[in-house]
Amino acid sequence: MSRTFDAADKSAGTTRRRFLRGSAAAAGGTVLGAGASVAAGTDNLPPNIPEWMKAPGEPTGGQLYGAPSSFEKGVVKNISKTLKQYISASSRTPLQELDGIITPNGLFYERHHGGVPTIDPAQHRLMLHGLVERPLIFTMDDLRRFPSESRVHFLECSGNPGYSKPYGKTASDLLGLVSCAEWTGVSLKLVLQEAGLKPEAKWVVAEGADAAALTRSIPIEKCLEDAMLVYSQNGERLRPQQGYPLPGFEGNMSVKWLRRLHVTAEPVYSREETSKYTDLLPDGTAREFSFYMEAKSIITRPSGGQRLGAPGVHEITGIAWSGHGKIARVEVSVDEGKSWQSAQLQEPVLTRALTRFRLPWRWEGKPAVIQSRAIDETGYVQPTLSELLAVRGENYFYHNNAIWPWRIAADGEVTNALA
Amino acid sequence: MSRTFDAADKSAGTTRRRFLRGSAAAAGGTVLGAGASVAAGTDNLPPNIPEWMKAPGEPTGGQLYGAPSSFEKGVVKNISKTLKQYISASSRTPLQELDGIITPNGLFYERHHGGVPTIDPAQHRLMLHGLVERPLIFTMDDLRRFPSESRVHFLECSGNPGYSKPYGKTASDLLGLVSCAEWTGVSLKLVLQEAGLKPEAKWVVAEGADAAALTRSIPIEKCLEDAMLVYSQNGERLRPQQGYPLPGFEGNMSVKWLRRLHVTAEPVYSREETSKYTDLLPDGTAREFSFYMEAKSIITRPSGGQRLGAPGVHEITGIAWSGHGKIARVEVSVDEGKSWQSAQLQEPVLTRALTRFRLPWRWEGKPAVIQSRAIDETGYVQPTLSELLAVRGENYFYHNNAIWPWRIAADGEVTNALA
Repeated sequence: MSRTFDAADKSAGTTRRRFLRGSAAAAGGTVLGAGASVAAGTDNLPPNIPEWMKAPGEPTGGQLYGAPSSFEKGVVKNISKTLKQYISASSRTPLQELDGIITPNGLFYERHHGGVPTIDPAQHRLMLHGLVERPLIFTMDDLRRFPSESRVHFLECSGNPGYSKPYGKTASDLLGLVSCAEWTGVSLKLVLQEAGLKPEAKWVVAEGADAAALTRSIPIEKCLEDAMLVYSQNGERLRPQQGYPLPGFEGNMSVKWLRRLHVTAEPVYSREETSKYTDLLPDGTAREFSFYMEAKSIITRPSGGQRLGAPGVHEITGIAWSGHGKIARVEVSVDEGKSWQSAQLQEPVLTRALTRFRLPWRWEGKPAVIQSRAIDETGYVQPTLSELLAVRGENYFYHNNAIWPWRIAADGEVTNALA
Repeated sequence: MSRTFDAADKSAGTTRRRFLRGSAAAAGGTVLGAGASVAAGTDNLPPNIPEWMKAPGEPTGGQLYGAPSSFEKGVVKNISKTLKQYISASSRTPLQELDGIITPNGLFYERHHGGVPTIDPAQHRLMLHGLVERPLIFTMDDLRRFPSESRVHFLECSGNPGYSKPYGKTASDLLGLVSCAEWTGVSLKLVLQEAGLKPEAKWVVAEGADAAALTRSIPIEKCLEDAMLVYSQNGERLRPQQGYPLPGFEGNMSVKWLRRLHVTAEPVYSREETSKYTDLLPDGTAREFSFYMEAKSIITRPSGGQRLGAPGVHEITGIAWSGHGKIARVEVSVDEGKSWQSAQLQEPVLTRALTRFRLPWRWEGKPAVIQSRAIDETGYVQPTLSELLAVRGENYFYHNNAIWPWRIAADGEVTNALA
């Protein structure tokens, strides 16, 4: 039984202010005057009362820690089902399913070298020693006593995408090893000052409390500039996958489950600085200690694995970021790179945070190639894959920040234009 | 078996730069030179290797949608165990456990009048009708076709705390019906323009698709100013508790599971605008359509139910917010309101978002009363409870934005100074 609503104005045409035009199916809503056809076979939809209005819903607080709708059960971390092992492995954020700049903690990407340790925060300790006046051991409570600060930053695997070759079906396959959160912790500078740095202190070697004892050397300048010992992520304590309970190390060399900071005069050349995380160049030398992630961007909608429903206006949206500071501009091309136009950036644009960009686009229903390129506040422009290959050769794996175009077929299917 | 570390410098004293001083237990870490006593009974702690470094941890992607550490299982929504029913009820955010300004989706507060409906997004429809040129019915896909925008805003129950009398043990008991997220959706203005407003359109009546069919009238000015139809929260789709899949209505009258927007010339005086959400004044009249939440703040650490560990420097931190825009200043008193000092505000300060404030404080180990007051960009100053009662009398329930002081006992125990 339908409820009575206002009669539809069947004669109302389009107005100058209407955003979405085109076929009825592509318009921004169905005209209510066409209700006879809309309602056919949809007896439980408006204007009728849907089933879920006819009885009380689930009780309040039924989930003391909430979860997404059961209809969103496909929106999960992206992890290959065919790995040989899942201890040194990664899971990717489903970028193409997300909006805005904050990554929910449940979908934050993971990369572990020795699995995820189960650490009792009451038992966890952080030791700070080496070239300091006063070596210290901190409990978690000690660290919570320091003045805190919060900042929104991205975190990214240097192997994102980790291939110099065309690869991947979806935005997540390609660049899902990046996520963004509001981090809270204590300034590392404050903690180092508590111990007192000796004049010859030039590096801080950070070691994690996982089975891999992941170890990285960080220049003292970075430690004193903006590094944080992080204990919270989007308001709540870090998830174990991001290093609970520890101090994670903010920045591009986040050492999780941090247990040791060794202040030294030289980098330690740890396993993670020799066998990994360097880039082999064509002349046989390797780029090393390349900490900063260069400017990068990706269109997340429409993107690989999705399908445009109908010709007409669609929003092109995606994310851009740079380890060197703020994103100054994102340009989008819808004609295979022949011309570029500036997208709108979501405000406020934050330093070293994901920056959401958006551009309305009228798709004519013909094949097209769309792509984005980021320009950061230093003026650096995200390169094409061929530009990157010309400089680095084909043996490098990390620090790939190429433009990744998407191909849209006449039927709306979106695929990786380089794969 | 201990690993070898650098010998501690037992003679190192305090330096001018040290932040934390006081007794050994209160200092920012234990001097490593006192290692003999630190290590006693803690054979699995640094400098020894903890158990969780001796074997691989949990596999990557073991949780396809992640959850907090098992050691955080007490950090959940705050809901009374003794309610008569849980259909029209609320759960509160554990403010005292959170940092920064973003509330994780799993801990977002809930308030439902008819339980949480389980809505299939493919079946959900939004009808826009009344004083418009062209009534429309939208699918979720239709709404996703519009240009999107994202903004960080708080959402708050007008009954937060919902008592004119002193009440509550913890910050969550008192003011836990407020949370903050990055919302993504479509500008309501754009959607109304798609339908075309008639000149006599002055109100929009919003109806939810829950068993309560919660209904509110919203002035057209607000709808055209900054209202959004929201479908995402902190990156992912809204949780059912916040109105999935629907358009939630951004602002202080968020109608969840939105199914109907009826454009009218007058407010509808719905149940929610007459029996609820008005404030009975001493002269027998009622404040009605009081949409804007006035400036408010609360210290979340130290706060009721917590205990200061030892005298020395502690950080006082909390949140402030205003429905009228940005927080301009937060002042903190540690002497029962005799004097006030400005706290540091977390940047960037965002319009109608939670604003984190922080102030280092040296607690001398004596009884103290601490409190905060917010001043927003309009110059409005958060009042004391007695100031509020003098104006409103004792019969009002909603829109209580009084200052709530905390009492700290000599043993460090923190309690509500007004309860």
